[in-house]
Amino acid sequence: MPLEVLEEAAAELADWQGSGMSVMEVSHRGKAFVACAADTEARFRSVMGVPDDYAVLFLQGGATGQFAAVPMNLTAAGDSIDLINTGQWSAKALSEAKKYGLDVRVVADEVASKYTSTPAAGSYTLNADAKYVHYTPNETIGGVAFGYVPETGDVPLVADMSSMILSQPIDVTKFGVIYAGTQKNLGPAGMCVVVVRRDLMGHARTDTPTILEYSGMAANDSMLNTPPTFGIYLLGKILAWIEVKGGVDGIAAINRAKAAALYDFIDGHPFYSNPVALDSRSIMNVTFLLADPELDKQFVSEATAAGLTNLAGHRSVGGMRASIYNAMPREGVDALIAFMADFAAKNG
Amino acid sequence: MPLEVLEEAAAELADWQGSGMSVMEVSHRGKAFVACAADTEARFRSVMGVPDDYAVLFLQGGATGQFAAVPMNLTAAGDSIDLINTGQWSAKALSEAKKYGLDVRVVADEVASKYTSTPAAGSYTLNADAKYVHYTPNETIGGVAFGYVPETGDVPLVADMSSMILSQPIDVTKFGVIYAGTQKNLGPAGMCVVVVRRDLMGHARTDTPTILEYSGMAANDSMLNTPPTFGIYLLGKILAWIEVKGGVDGIAAINRAKAAALYDFIDGHPFYSNPVALDSRSIMNVTFLLADPELDKQFVSEATAAGLTNLAGHRSVGGMRASIYNAMPREGVDALIAFMADFAAKNG
Repeated sequence: MPLEVLEEAAAELADWQGSGMSVMEVSHRGKAFVACAADTEARFRSVMGVPDDYAVLFLQGGATGQFAAVPMNLTAAGDSIDLINTGQWSAKALSEAKKYGLDVRVVADEVASKYTSTPAAGSYTLNADAKYVHYTPNETIGGVAFGYVPETGDVPLVADMSSMILSQPIDVTKFGVIYAGTQKNLGPAGMCVVVVRRDLMGHARTDTPTILEYSGMAANDSMLNTPPTFGIYLLGKILAWIEVKGGVDGIAAINRAKAAALYDFIDGHPFYSNPVALDSRSIMNVTFLLADPELDKQFVSEATAAGLTNLAGHRSVGGMRASIYNAMPREGVDALIAFMADFAAKNG
Repeated sequence: MPLEVLEEAAAELADWQGSGMSVMEVSHRGKAFVACAADTEARFRSVMGVPDDYAVLFLQGGATGQFAAVPMNLTAAGDSIDLINTGQWSAKALSEAKKYGLDVRVVADEVASKYTSTPAAGSYTLNADAKYVHYTPNETIGGVAFGYVPETGDVPLVADMSSMILSQPIDVTKFGVIYAGTQKNLGPAGMCVVVVRRDLMGHARTDTPTILEYSGMAANDSMLNTPPTFGIYLLGKILAWIEVKGGVDGIAAINRAKAAALYDFIDGHPFYSNPVALDSRSIMNVTFLLADPELDKQFVSEATAAGLTNLAGHRSVGGMRASIYNAMPREGVDALIAFMADFAAKNG
C-alpha cells in the first residue's frame, strides 16, 4: 500500500473525522460511513471506468469466495462453462467450479508450457452454449499475463483480476463479471471488489449464501450485512492516491516503465533469465531465475537483509518473483536492479 | 474498540515490528504473520477457554456467512433442525437455513412477547432427531439475553454469539459450534470467529464454498486463502487488553456493574422504562423508552451533541438502545446516566 495512504490512515485511526471514534467503530449505517462508502464506489467507478449498467459490490471472502459465487450466481446444475487455464489461480477457479455440477470445458490449457505463456488469440475455440468464459488476466505465481482480452461474443466473460486490477486501463464493457481480492492493488486483505453487469444478476441458485448473492447485495449497496468497513475506507484513499498519480493511465505508464526496466536488466544480464514468453509477461509479477539455483537461498536472504522482501518464487515454481504492484515505487525497482547487479558481480 | 488498542495499532500501522511494512502488507505466509496469527489463536483459546477438541477458525463473511455455513457444514437436505426464535438475528438465521432444504422447527418463539423475553428453561421441547439446535444468546436489537445455556443432550448446540462473545464466561464444552462476527467485541468488521467441535467437521455438503467449509479451513489454519490479516492482528491486541483487565472474569465484572448501573437508573426513574423481562436483560445492549416518544429525536440529537452516539433504537422497535460492549468504559455509562438525568429534568 502507498506509504502516504498508510500514514493518513494511522493519523486518523483513533479519531475519524472528529468523531472521537475509529472508522472501524462508527455504525456502517450512520451518515458518515454511508457517505464514505458512496465516495469509494464513485471513485472506483470513475477511476476504473465502470458504466451504470454494472453494479460494484464490496464483498468478503476474497477471490476464493468468487470461485464459488460466480457459478452459484450465473449457472444452474447441468450447465456448461468454458475456462482458460494459465496457472494455479485458473486451476483453483476450475476446481471450485466443478463442485457445482457443471460441465467445465478447459478450452485452452497452458500446463504443457509449464504456465510460461498465454494462449494466442484465435488459437482456441470457445463454445457458444457456455454460460460464461472464465480466465485469469494475470497469473501471480507464473508472472504470466494476457496481452489481449478474449473475444467471447454473446457469452459473458468473467475475469479474476486480483493481481492486476487498476494497474492498466481495461474496457469494462467487454466483461460480464470482474472480481478482485483487494490485497494486491486495492488495500488490505479481507475484501473482494466485484463488478457485475446488471442483467446477469437475479438468477442465482436458491441455495446461494446471502453473502455471495449478487442481486441482494447490489440492492443493499453491499450492506445486507455489516460490510468490511475498514477495507472500503482504505480503498477510497487508495483510489484518491491513484487519481493524484494521473488515474489508471498515469499508474499504467509508471507500471510499464518499472516492469520494462526490470525485464531489460534481466534479459541483458547473463546471470539472470525470465522463462515467460515475450508477449505474456506480467507487468505486476516479474519472475526470474538465477544462473545457479544453488544460490537462491543466499539471494533471498541477502535481499531481505537489504530491505528487499518477498522475493522468493512460489514453492511450486522456485526461482524468484518480484511483485511490483501499484504501490511499489520506481525507486524500489531500481534498488532491486542495483542489488541484482551487485549480487551477480559477487557470485556470478 | 479500546482506545489503547487503536493507539497501539496507529503507531505501528506503517511500520510493523520494524519490517518497514504495514501488517496489512506483509505476506500472510511469512514467519512474522504466521506467528501473529498463532499468537491470536493461542490467546483466544486461553481467554475463552477453548479445549483442544475444538477448532478455532478466523473466517470472512460475518455471522451472516455462518447462517449459511452452519447448515452447509452440519446437515444434508431433508434433515431437521431446531431453532429458538428470540429476535431479528434468530429470524435471519432461520430464513437462511430454510434455503438448504431443511425442516426447520421453531421450538420456542418469542414473537408474541414482541421479543422482550427469552423462553424459560424447560418451557419448550427439543427434538432428539435434530441435527442441531440454534439459538442467539444475546439479541442485539431487543436487548434480550438468555440467563442460561439450553440443555440439548446429544444434539449439538449452535450459538450466534456476535453481540456477547467474551463479555462473560461461557462453558465451551456445552456447544457444538459457536460463531461471532467480530465488529462488537472482537475488532473491526469483516471477520467471523468460529469455534467448532472437531467431530462435527468433515461432513459438509459437497457444494459448500471453500471459504465456508470448516474442515479445510481448520486443516490450513484458516489460511486456505488469504485471511483477514488486519482483523487477526487486531483481535490479538484486543485479547491482550482483555488479559490485562483480568480475563473474561474481570471483563464480566465490569460489564455487569456497567449494566446494573444503567438498569437501576432506568428502573428508578419515572421518565425512563425498559420493556425486557428481568431475567432476560442483556448486559451488552440496554434498551429503554422515554415516557414521551415525541422526544426521541431530541434525545438522540442532544445526546450526539454531547458525544453520546449510536443511541437510537433499531427502526423496527424504536426507543433507545445503549450498546455497552466490552470496550465501553464505565465512565461512558456514567456519562450517559448523567445526560439522561439532565434530559429528564429539563423535559420530563
